[in-house]
Amino acid sequence: MTINGSDHNLDSEHLVRSEDPQHPANLICTLCRKFYTLGWRFSRRFEQVTGTGGGTSIRHGPHIYIAPSGVQKELMEPTDMFVMDFESKEYLRKPKSHKPSACTPLFMSSFTLRDAHCCIHTHSQWAVLITLLVERDFGPSAPFEIERIEQIKGIPKNYARDANGKVAYLGYFERLRIPIIENTAHEEDLTDSLQQAMNDYPDTYAVLVRRHGVYVWGDNVHKAKTQCESLDYIFQLAVEMHKLGLPWMPKD
Amino acid sequence: MTINGSDHNLDSEHLVRSEDPQHPANLICTLCRKFYTLGWRFSRRFEQVTGTGGGTSIRHGPHIYIAPSGVQKELMEPTDMFVMDFESKEYLRKPKSHKPSACTPLFMSSFTLRDAHCCIHTHSQWAVLITLLVERDFGPSAPFEIERIEQIKGIPKNYARDANGKVAYLGYFERLRIPIIENTAHEEDLTDSLQQAMNDYPDTYAVLVRRHGVYVWGDNVHKAKTQCESLDYIFQLAVEMHKLGLPWMPKD
Amino acid sequence: MTINGSDHNLDSEHLVRSEDPQHPANLICTLCRKFYTLGWRFSRRFEQVTGTGGGTSIRHGPHIYIAPSGVQKELMEPTDMFVMDFESKEYLRKPKSHKPSACTPLFMSSFTLRDAHCCIHTHSQWAVLITLLVERDFGPSAPFEIERIEQIKGIPKNYARDANGKVAYLGYFERLRIPIIENTAHEEDLTDSLQQAMNDYPDTYAVLVRRHGVYVWGDNVHKAKTQCESLDYIFQLAVEMHKLGLPWMPKD
Amino acid sequence: MTINGSDHNLDSEHLVRSEDPQHPANLICTLCRKFYTLGWRFSRRFEQVTGTGGGTSIRHGPHIYIAPSGVQKELMEPTDMFVMDFESKEYLRKPKSHKPSACTPLFMSSFTLRDAHCCIHTHSQWAVLITLLVERDFGPSAPFEIERIEQIKGIPKNYARDANGKVAYLGYFERLRIPIIENTAHEEDLTDSLQQAMNDYPDTYAVLVRRHGVYVWGDNVHKAKTQCESLDYIFQLAVEMHKLGLPWMPKD
Repeated sequence: MTINGSDHNLDSEHLVRSEDPQHPANLICTLCRKFYTLGWRFSRRFEQVTGTGGGTSIRHGPHIYIAPSGVQKELMEPTDMFVMDFESKEYLRKPKSHKPSACTPLFMSSFTLRDAHCCIHTHSQWAVLITLLVERDFGPSAPFEIERIEQIKGIPKNYARDANGKVAYLGYFERLRIPIIENTAHEEDLTDSLQQAMNDYPDTYAVLVRRHGVYVWGDNVHKAKTQCESLDYIFQLAVEMHKLGLPWMPKD
Repeated sequence: MTINGSDHNLDSEHLVRSEDPQHPANLICTLCRKFYTLGWRFSRRFEQVTGTGGGTSIRHGPHIYIAPSGVQKELMEPTDMFVMDFESKEYLRKPKSHKPSACTPLFMSSFTLRDAHCCIHTHSQWAVLITLLVERDFGPSAPFEIERIEQIKGIPKNYARDANGKVAYLGYFERLRIPIIENTAHEEDLTDSLQQAMNDYPDTYAVLVRRHGVYVWGDNVHKAKTQCESLDYIFQLAVEMHKLGLPWMPKD
Repeated sequence: MTINGSDHNLDSEHLVRSEDPQHPANLICTLCRKFYTLGWRFSRRFEQVTGTGGGTSIRHGPHIYIAPSGVQKELMEPTDMFVMDFESKEYLRKPKSHKPSACTPLFMSSFTLRDAHCCIHTHSQWAVLITLLVERDFGPSAPFEIERIEQIKGIPKNYARDANGKVAYLGYFERLRIPIIENTAHEEDLTDSLQQAMNDYPDTYAVLVRRHGVYVWGDNVHKAKTQCESLDYIFQLAVEMHKLGLPWMPKD
Repeated sequence: MTINGSDHNLDSEHLVRSEDPQHPANLICTLCRKFYTLGWRFSRRFEQVTGTGGGTSIRHGPHIYIAPSGVQKELMEPTDMFVMDFESKEYLRKPKSHKPSACTPLFMSSFTLRDAHCCIHTHSQWAVLITLLVERDFGPSAPFEIERIEQIKGIPKNYARDANGKVAYLGYFERLRIPIIENTAHEEDLTDSLQQAMNDYPDTYAVLVRRHGVYVWGDNVHKAKTQCESLDYIFQLAVEMHKLGLPWMPKD
């Protein structure tokens, strides 16, 4: 069962070989293992990176590091990484035995349109259920909206920065709105509608995909990870609220 | 508490002794421990291999490796493995202190009728609930069917191979159909109806057993594992959809 | 935060000091850690041994080993064990800093009335919910009953042994029946009704306690553990079936 | 991704450097890692300390140790701790790269008004759902109340001590009552209503915050942790009871 290819042009080796645990090629592996393990641990969220689903990408200086498609997340190695030049969009490194991730143009959209440095894609069942509940209760073009849940304070309000370059986060009395786009036969075909949603919702740090999952990005790996966790907490809570007949937006 | 027997004819020792982690005798143990641990971790799926339930088998060259019955999955050792000759169906190795798995003829069916090389059997509660919901809502002979869930793309479409010998996977707009057979008093008595279901559904890589669980196979261990994960994701999602009144097959 | 006392009469030291991982004093600690960890891992079942709830006891030759009350399960040490003489019911060892478990007379009942060698008590939420559903739907004196779930085959049918001293397990078409007793203010006051239930249900290997949890015993640690796992699987499945309007006993 | 600052006035180093695992600076880290890991493991409760939510504080002699805000719980180091003088309320130690926790005045309230030595704050989804169910079914000023669940015996009855200085715990037939306060835009603004609730409910060891979570304290770390676990068990069970139409307070 050889699933991690290592047949690749050796002169690109230096791009993924580093002792630094913070090097993106190492970080993606740590993150994928963590997600896989966490995934299996936190109740319904194992599916985030179940088997070979989901994915993640990190932008590091002039380079984009992308986890390959179809590799068991917990077995990912730095040498499995694809590396792309951010400017030319050309692959500086292509492990021969792997397929590039179909999410690549979507990850890239968060880097180019949002200046993000990390983008995470999951198949969270909570996200999928939210897209179905919103469609049925509010219509196909409605976004997911929720108010007055403490955890929304974990999501940035917009891209504005204060004097110290700090981002502002949503307030408890503000509204979290995540756009939902329709799924397509091929993941790369989501790119146009994802970019459209980014334009229609200039403040959003995430886009839900109907019957599919969610894309979440952040200024760095730490923020992308914690925003992904906070959103999944909110999606899960919202589904439980729906089961109990509790509205997402308090009347009063 | 001696539960792992090691009293066996020593001349079969070489069949299960290997330094290679990819050797099937080692792989089954890794898989069982992983499933057990994952099982305990991912919410409702611990039951997949709870206690001594479920099982797995690997076909390796001329040999079939089978985990014994009634052994705690997390404590399984290579020396606990049964080894059978694929052609003669004779045991090359029988740990005296263990019972052969009652699943053996079912595992074998996937190897002979489908040319699979790994077969996994679980008692997933999601699988059991699906078989009950389908029976009540669609009748005793209906299969489980679902459409337009991204994760079905993780399941092969059929056994056809392309020029490069690659298998095609279900498309997002295609329908996943898993046959359901009735349970029997003794597991081995499932063999005929399992084989019948394989004939009636020539494309399926899995068969659900009412009130019991599911059998999933694949071309290799990696594929069997990820297909098992993807199916369980879909079963779990489908149960949650049912709780929320969301149909498995969108009207439009 | 000293929670594991070690002030105890040293001449009883030999009772709990052993290099053998199978020695009961070590086994209970392993079991408690495993349960605690598993507990935290398997969805709703963490509460089985949450904090200081639940407990376990092993009968070993002339001695009974009992985990103390009020000790964090994951931090339990062999020196925390109480040891009682099976005949005289006198403590051979009492760690001064600990309270003996209030479950002691209940554990003892399974040893004396059932010749069990291990008894596990949990506060499984699934068990608690089952006792409430049975009371409401079938009345205060009804037992929990379920049929035709493959996993019931993991529960012994009665105490009869075959020629080889093997116990028979429930068949798929047979009925699992677990008596339910009312809870009392003090755990030790459950003893009479527990023993009454054991007499009224001479075949049962477990007794549910309303609004409290379950007691499960077995011929040895391995069997008590796997029977506890199988029952909790069944309790959890039965609660999910109830949520989905699926009857525990098929009509036909 | 440097998220754990270590730039701090070195002369405060001795406050957080200790080989003793029981030293509060080490205990908080152990606790946070444990909660994070457990969090990810136990089904819905990962959110307790998801990402950077929740927090904990320990009072140790004349000092208060407080985990910083916005640090990934699993990566917390002793050098990340804030240390405050209990009398003067002045910081003896402020890691420059961190923000003090907004929970500080709330933790402090449990130390000053209740003489607690450890306070834990979580965003448990079960706690959030309970606050919403109570508001809808019993009104905005109603507390959460439940009776006759064995696990309530894990919660102290009041602050009275017996001759040996032991605290009394709730009896099975007594009622657990946890006050609920309304959430505010800024966490520190909860202080007045939290203290009001402590006065209105002089026996309580916890306060729920609507749409936010819960604060739980104890005489020491061990008690705060197990009381937090017991309460979350009860919140989770109460939500499941509500789904199944089972009342929190038995009629008879």
